[in-house]
Amino acid sequence: MSDLLERLQRLGEVGRTGEGIERPLFSEAEHQARTLLAGWARASGFDVQQDAIGNLFIRRPGAWASPPLQTGSHLDTVKGGGRYDGAYGVVGGLCALEALARRGVEMRHPIERVAWAGEEGSRFPKGCLGSSVYAGLTTRQQALALRGDDGMSFADALRGPSGLLAEVPVRETPRMPCGYVELHIEQGPILERNGLRLGVVTAIAGQRRLRISIGGEAGHAGTVPMAYRRDAFNAAAEIAVELERAARRIGECVATIGMVRVEPNQTNVIPGRAEIRLDVRSVDDERVRRMIDELEQLARAVRERRNVSIELEPLEERAATPLDPALRGAVRTVVEALGHPVFEIPSGAGHDAMCIAKVAPAAMIFVPSIGGASHVGHERTAPEDLQLGVTALAETLVEADRLL
Amino acid sequence: MSDLLERLQRLGEVGRTGEGIERPLFSEAEHQARTLLAGWARASGFDVQQDAIGNLFIRRPGAWASPPLQTGSHLDTVKGGGRYDGAYGVVGGLCALEALARRGVEMRHPIERVAWAGEEGSRFPKGCLGSSVYAGLTTRQQALALRGDDGMSFADALRGPSGLLAEVPVRETPRMPCGYVELHIEQGPILERNGLRLGVVTAIAGQRRLRISIGGEAGHAGTVPMAYRRDAFNAAAEIAVELERAARRIGECVATIGMVRVEPNQTNVIPGRAEIRLDVRSVDDERVRRMIDELEQLARAVRERRNVSIELEPLEERAATPLDPALRGAVRTVVEALGHPVFEIPSGAGHDAMCIAKVAPAAMIFVPSIGGASHVGHERTAPEDLQLGVTALAETLVEADRLL
Repeated sequence: MSDLLERLQRLGEVGRTGEGIERPLFSEAEHQARTLLAGWARASGFDVQQDAIGNLFIRRPGAWASPPLQTGSHLDTVKGGGRYDGAYGVVGGLCALEALARRGVEMRHPIERVAWAGEEGSRFPKGCLGSSVYAGLTTRQQALALRGDDGMSFADALRGPSGLLAEVPVRETPRMPCGYVELHIEQGPILERNGLRLGVVTAIAGQRRLRISIGGEAGHAGTVPMAYRRDAFNAAAEIAVELERAARRIGECVATIGMVRVEPNQTNVIPGRAEIRLDVRSVDDERVRRMIDELEQLARAVRERRNVSIELEPLEERAATPLDPALRGAVRTVVEALGHPVFEIPSGAGHDAMCIAKVAPAAMIFVPSIGGASHVGHERTAPEDLQLGVTALAETLVEADRLL
Repeated sequence: MSDLLERLQRLGEVGRTGEGIERPLFSEAEHQARTLLAGWARASGFDVQQDAIGNLFIRRPGAWASPPLQTGSHLDTVKGGGRYDGAYGVVGGLCALEALARRGVEMRHPIERVAWAGEEGSRFPKGCLGSSVYAGLTTRQQALALRGDDGMSFADALRGPSGLLAEVPVRETPRMPCGYVELHIEQGPILERNGLRLGVVTAIAGQRRLRISIGGEAGHAGTVPMAYRRDAFNAAAEIAVELERAARRIGECVATIGMVRVEPNQTNVIPGRAEIRLDVRSVDDERVRRMIDELEQLARAVRERRNVSIELEPLEERAATPLDPALRGAVRTVVEALGHPVFEIPSGAGHDAMCIAKVAPAAMIFVPSIGGASHVGHERTAPEDLQLGVTALAETLVEADRLL
């Protein structure tokens, strides 16, 4: 199983820029990552295929000619991302299949390990792109028409030298899996803070993103009395402070203002305009709705009190994705059998499992992130935890094979 | 006196970029503005001189060989500035001298109108540069060594084709004035809101500027529970809201957070770092000190409560400049004689009068800014108010001539 660490190490060099990694979809680096994975899988005797959108499959046949049981994750990264987000589930899936093969475990269902194309929205303006097309939530035409941040269309990038792998056969129609289990790093601090090594994911959080645009009046920082001011940044600051309080009061949800823009952004000028972006998430859609209600009330109050304009523009909205009770049960059984406490944890981040859960029972297994760090170059998970996760994945696939 | 409006109009075309004006010190546009002024003054029969630092003087001799009574302002502008800030006092000073000459008013003191070099810090990193050197607050060597935002030294710019005027004699040692009266637009909304046309300036506000740097912990916007967060932007927002409250509570002072920077400034990442810059002003230094005390207490509390680092770095500090009681009295006498209510008003913005007030009695006269707008292309003052201000300046010079 030390192949796991060596391969992750190797993959961590592909697209490395300083401490972080940059592997946008259909970049040279991302193409090289897929090539490496295909080579490792072939060397281990697995059949390698891709579909017309760039998802990469390796397959271990089962006793039945049934729909496959799938596991997977992604190989693309955010700018300056880490070596485990996505790559761990892909490499871990391969290692789990190898372990099952080595042990000669006979399974009823074919098992497929998928590397989904473009989970991070790392080049084209849509996250979970490959899994979304696979599950029929996005049409192939919609995907092909997307334009990347470099101006190139998805269709052109797919046909280009860093698109589909040259020597890998292309599957025709996708066959929906009978079940899906995704192994992933937590990307948050909860497992570590609770001294746990495995997490059984309950659901993937729903999310709302909004742009909050505030229009006040610019003015000289020295000459306009406080009582006459319509300071757009102070209005934004008040909204930020109140939204943070609301999120704590409502509970089991998170609210983040990660992006802030102020105009003209000069020390000696009262801000005339401010834009902040709000990201709200919870596995309970009702709590997200309550946060948006709070925001709307707050916007009305601040607008009135400060004589500023406030516009709320929805940017993204997705409902929470509960994971499959039976498959979650299979993960719980395995975690207990491995001698670990069963700990149920929500996923605040989105994953390909969100899309596949729309067409098949899906579950997720988390391993801890050291310091909760993710999407950064110093994203780390202890080697023992990485290996424990792969063991849990292999056992869960066996358990699911019996169950489904 | 309609020369006033025509000249301001003409000067408003020099360095125009779209709606605004850009005339940094020793730029082609600023040089052209000085050339125009020198030409107008010569055509009106005044003697024109400059000093070795670029201050431009026109002079009407008096009966006495005494130190001169001066009036003045500046010709440089901020980027995208307006046509009245500075230029009004310079052109208005010329028009006042012309009016006195036309009326044959005999005065005891020589009268000088000065265009001070580089009041705005428009190119070199120091405001009120020309008046500061003149008053001996900055040495000539310090000024010559300054580097502009284009990398050129003040010394080289001064010697360059847009530096000193070629055909104007250079004065040797400056002679401190016996009194100084500056005419300026208010740059704020107070006169307009009170329906007034003239303001007697009481003092120029003292100012403190600080950089507030906050270090928290970046993290995934979806995966880090609220209770575990060390959000640098929310800490900044709390400080902003509390400082605004403090400024209103303390009164007669203004506090502005005009510049905000957040890292990494991405919607899906909890801000790990934030920087805000605070500008505090009051004509009462004690109120500025109380604001800084509030900030320090707030920083301690927020640091503790949110487990973030907060550093306060002073960027600028200047004490308030009270204007001369006797010369203010002269302005009040003139305002009353002109049939206007006497309204005393602090100056929140800095002016060349700050420097000259260190070496001579100084006063300022304000006229209203429409909508309080300044440092913007749509900076406006009604023509009647512009002309009234020049009349008030001319009369104040006569009054001061008698008084000093």
